[in-house]
Amino acid sequence: MHLGLFILGTGSHVAGWRHPGAMTSFQDFNQVQEIARIAERGRFDLIFMGDNLYADPGAHPSYTVRLEPMTMLAALAAGTSRIGLGATVSTTYNDPWSVARVFASLDHISKGRAAWNAVTTASGQGAGNFGTVHPDHASRYERAAEFVDVVKGLWDCWADDAIVADRATGTYIDTARLRALDHAGTFFKVKGPLNIGRCPQGQPVVLQAGGSAPGLALAARTADVVFSVVQDMDEAKAQYAALKKRLPAHDRSPEHVTVLPGVMPVVGRTPTEAREKLALLQSFVNGSNALQLLSDRLGQDMTGYDLDQPVPEIALPDTYHSFARVMLAKARRENMTLRDLYDLVAAARGHWVLCGSPEQVADTLQQWFDERAADGFNVMPPYFPEGFDDFVDLVVPILQERGLFRHDYEGETLRDHLGLPRPPSRFF
Amino acid sequence: MHLGLFILGTGSHVAGWRHPGAMTSFQDFNQVQEIARIAERGRFDLIFMGDNLYADPGAHPSYTVRLEPMTMLAALAAGTSRIGLGATVSTTYNDPWSVARVFASLDHISKGRAAWNAVTTASGQGAGNFGTVHPDHASRYERAAEFVDVVKGLWDCWADDAIVADRATGTYIDTARLRALDHAGTFFKVKGPLNIGRCPQGQPVVLQAGGSAPGLALAARTADVVFSVVQDMDEAKAQYAALKKRLPAHDRSPEHVTVLPGVMPVVGRTPTEAREKLALLQSFVNGSNALQLLSDRLGQDMTGYDLDQPVPEIALPDTYHSFARVMLAKARRENMTLRDLYDLVAAARGHWVLCGSPEQVADTLQQWFDERAADGFNVMPPYFPEGFDDFVDLVVPILQERGLFRHDYEGETLRDHLGLPRPPSRFF
Repeated sequence: MHLGLFILGTGSHVAGWRHPGAMTSFQDFNQVQEIARIAERGRFDLIFMGDNLYADPGAHPSYTVRLEPMTMLAALAAGTSRIGLGATVSTTYNDPWSVARVFASLDHISKGRAAWNAVTTASGQGAGNFGTVHPDHASRYERAAEFVDVVKGLWDCWADDAIVADRATGTYIDTARLRALDHAGTFFKVKGPLNIGRCPQGQPVVLQAGGSAPGLALAARTADVVFSVVQDMDEAKAQYAALKKRLPAHDRSPEHVTVLPGVMPVVGRTPTEAREKLALLQSFVNGSNALQLLSDRLGQDMTGYDLDQPVPEIALPDTYHSFARVMLAKARRENMTLRDLYDLVAAARGHWVLCGSPEQVADTLQQWFDERAADGFNVMPPYFPEGFDDFVDLVVPILQERGLFRHDYEGETLRDHLGLPRPPSRFF
Repeated sequence: MHLGLFILGTGSHVAGWRHPGAMTSFQDFNQVQEIARIAERGRFDLIFMGDNLYADPGAHPSYTVRLEPMTMLAALAAGTSRIGLGATVSTTYNDPWSVARVFASLDHISKGRAAWNAVTTASGQGAGNFGTVHPDHASRYERAAEFVDVVKGLWDCWADDAIVADRATGTYIDTARLRALDHAGTFFKVKGPLNIGRCPQGQPVVLQAGGSAPGLALAARTADVVFSVVQDMDEAKAQYAALKKRLPAHDRSPEHVTVLPGVMPVVGRTPTEAREKLALLQSFVNGSNALQLLSDRLGQDMTGYDLDQPVPEIALPDTYHSFARVMLAKARRENMTLRDLYDLVAAARGHWVLCGSPEQVADTLQQWFDERAADGFNVMPPYFPEGFDDFVDLVVPILQERGLFRHDYEGETLRDHLGLPRPPSRFF
């Protein structure tokens, strides 16, 4: 079983920061470092940081303020030794040469622990910060596909042995062992090579989280790890099977893509204590911006609705991102009101909430793993550090005792942790 | 006196990496960290990293391979405690929202030690990596001026007290204490605000190195620290006076801009040992790519010339960058051949080489400082770590004994080290 830690602001619960055991600032690096060290103590495969390209203090104040992912991960690389370091960097508002370079640099700094979550930016709110118009879903995914190909191509431009640094002869680089990329496509013209040698991992790990049809296609072709948004096991099994089935068509082994559904665990020493913890967290939720947050998560203007009426029929385009689809499906199954849906969104932004005793939580995770609904989990604590300590100190030891999870790191790189081979360069 | 350490690849001497005491890889973070710790032991104000947006293994192999500056500095922030951390990030091939954000993040991570060297990219070689055409000098500087204004504006969008995080009331952000920027100019439309709160330094320190007329104008208006390229003291005094004279017109105090000429020190325990060190370094230079390197540094195709003929008359446009102008002026003064000029460029890429015993080096630095040719120096060791240890262990103690340089850090932030006030937000 593989475990990732998802970091988003002060925690995944919208009001988790109000808990007495919670940190309240996600721009205080000492607190972030403490979180990373807990994850490494728990032998997690990686920590993984979400991102946004705009401030939205109205809809989700506690997620708005954050360190920039690459600087944060680089600083964490110096303060950790084994855990993988993943960040969301948009293919919509960046250029491939810079992204290839910054992840290659992180992979060198961390000695093979870098991972890139290659996303298309769903929200159009960032466009105003880049003086541009937000592209539509289809062209975002076309651009993303070309973007990922260019980045991987740039990572392959240097042979492992291109840097010679022979003092006696004065030869620093064997210029026969690197080459340009000379990419010219629909969205990008990129000459290459990078000005940094081949990565310790060959290529940093590529993560993807897209749940739409084009997102799934991109993931099947290019991702090493897929984060998914699910609310129940049958849904997770179907998604898992659908993705794994696509891999042979891309000459990829099903073992070489790791599927990690997101889960917000709320762990108590007893079932009652866990329920009380969740109830306490929910009591912190201030519904004053409920319709604003729902609008943000559903991508639809919900401000004209009544919170105490049933969730209205909303026709989402096929391309719409998975949070909205998964949440609305659950709302329909369970005849929720908008207030019920808001409570769900406030708890984990549409992700699965798993509340129980350590044994209950471990049992459920094991069941999902055994029934091939997941290769592991993207753990999204409601708040830090206590809400994460609970999981590491109470649940991880049970998974270890059952032989489901490592007692210690066995390799050095993130690819080692994930059991992924080091890819050879396509050119050398 | 203020001291910056300039880091460029394996050292500023083109073949310094061949020295037996030299590190040979600038993508090995452990070696970079060792350099930073030597600088902190020497109580330097800051380390400062150059950058390029392309690989050029032909013209300057040992400078081509490098870590990306922001990830490198962020990792160094975690491994150092006091020294300032500066990086070159181009205004030609980036967007202001991202640059404002990444330096704000570094300032938070380092607790107030970030500095941005806001350059226009002189070489057109990077354009091919961004699928674009390199803009001309004038529009690069117009863009740079607007870029710096937007970045500083973004840094001002959050009041110091905007993040409340009041557990009792549930108020996380006081939305009256931040605002959009709503910039709409010639080159950029940027809405803002950033998704990160106000920096420990208020604004990260801004460095500039432009030596052309538009570069000087930009520096006078916006820079806190200016790196200059000089070859003799009279030239340095004239540049220093010209810059300081411009400041009152921008309502700026001459004390609030620190001028640091670049110098490559070659220090021996005796004058003879120093000369022998420089001769040894020069013996490593392999002239096979001499005309290529000269072409790169002069920005002119020099490959048709004879190395053993006098430096030809070259008419540089007024806007041309200062390396070329300073080097050609020196070559004319001293009747150099192209080979002589190449030796100079190979030694320190056009910067001033100061070779001597510790006392001689300290005497010269003091003379420049006393005669107002400099507020300090941008130290460019020929190789690392030995070529820098020499300066820190032999020269710095003399400067300290003479009362010219600090014995220990007195403040916490880079602004403290430089004696610069923390700027208030223009909005709050």
